[in-house]
Amino acid sequence: MPLPPRVSIVGASGALGQGLARRWAAAGIPLALGSREASRAQAAAAEVTAAVPGADMEFGENATAAEGSPVVAVAVPFAAQAQTYKSIADALAPGTIVLDATVPLATAVGGKPTRTLGVWQGSAAQQAAELVPEGVSVVSALHTVSAEMLADPGHRFEEDVLVCGDDAEAKATVAGLVEAIEGLRAVDAGRLEQSRIAESLTALMIGINIRNKTHAGIRITGL
Amino acid sequence: MPLPPRVSIVGASGALGQGLARRWAAAGIPLALGSREASRAQAAAAEVTAAVPGADMEFGENATAAEGSPVVAVAVPFAAQAQTYKSIADALAPGTIVLDATVPLATAVGGKPTRTLGVWQGSAAQQAAELVPEGVSVVSALHTVSAEMLADPGHRFEEDVLVCGDDAEAKATVAGLVEAIEGLRAVDAGRLEQSRIAESLTALMIGINIRNKTHAGIRITGL
Repeated sequence: MPLPPRVSIVGASGALGQGLARRWAAAGIPLALGSREASRAQAAAAEVTAAVPGADMEFGENATAAEGSPVVAVAVPFAAQAQTYKSIADALAPGTIVLDATVPLATAVGGKPTRTLGVWQGSAAQQAAELVPEGVSVVSALHTVSAEMLADPGHRFEEDVLVCGDDAEAKATVAGLVEAIEGLRAVDAGRLEQSRIAESLTALMIGINIRNKTHAGIRITGL
Repeated sequence: MPLPPRVSIVGASGALGQGLARRWAAAGIPLALGSREASRAQAAAAEVTAAVPGADMEFGENATAAEGSPVVAVAVPFAAQAQTYKSIADALAPGTIVLDATVPLATAVGGKPTRTLGVWQGSAAQQAAELVPEGVSVVSALHTVSAEMLADPGHRFEEDVLVCGDDAEAKATVAGLVEAIEGLRAVDAGRLEQSRIAESLTALMIGINIRNKTHAGIRITGL
């Protein structure tokens, strides 16, 4: 599966968005970085360029940045997920693949990061699927990958990324983007409804990280 | 942490109970095998003895087998969990550690094995905790370990077991029992309430197994 010619990152000024931007820029993928405010997107782009000189990058408000890319990665906290999707929906043309990495951590309502909230649709990814226009495919992934380690160019991953979605081709595209980051292996974790399990793993990882002062990841054995 | 002098297995005629019995017998741990009917417990004991000659083993109805061991492992399907606990509750003395491996798969109500049911208490393990007498500590573990691979003495594991519980000492005892099985590493996954995440992983593993014709396991990286 060839890499997409351009990837938009919605929420690029957050830790996960920034980490993904640096890794994908380093892999030579042209990017469009979005944030709620264009000035923050510009700052995010400057940070990526400082880390990856010569990176091919545009930036703007989320809706502007989301336009015109075959893949749009959404990396926002759960508290901002619904309003973010509403703000970018018009920019998503039919055929767009949305990579959603949202985890419904209880922190969204002042709770613990080791707990998740119940989402009416079953998972944050399924909530996203309800909020995108027809013809747009949501694939969820990257829930358990440390944003901090993504931003650290010296860190070499050796872990798996669970990929959930209902469209096999869209999942393959996302798997390619995951594996463009050295040391990450994409594992097909089934339909989008399985995302609730992948998402909840983040809460488990956070607990393990706290207890062990580490950046834990997940590996599926037997593959 | 020294291994307990005796372990009871409730549901020893099921696939997981049988697999655990063979592995623990091979590790030299004296066992008491229970089943709903004494005759099935006897058959289970005969199978274990055939696989592990000289195994130190008693057998009987679940309540009889559960009596007098410092650790009681409960390996029953979710559909039978509540009634099983009710049947053994009187046999559990204060201080007993219950190792619960129940997963609320939707198969309990005719659904898919890649889906779980919502449990009012939060998880099957927390339901178990509600059903044991005061002073008995429930630790959940072994959700993602293949019963079939446990029963195969030629299979060498290389995976982790998430252990959840509210009592650190009980968790350490269970971790010791997990690691008495070669190639399994126990990972502290936090309080018993986190068991809902560990339990749901079974549904995810089953999906991965179906797609890849394997017996997948889980490994936590970064530890």
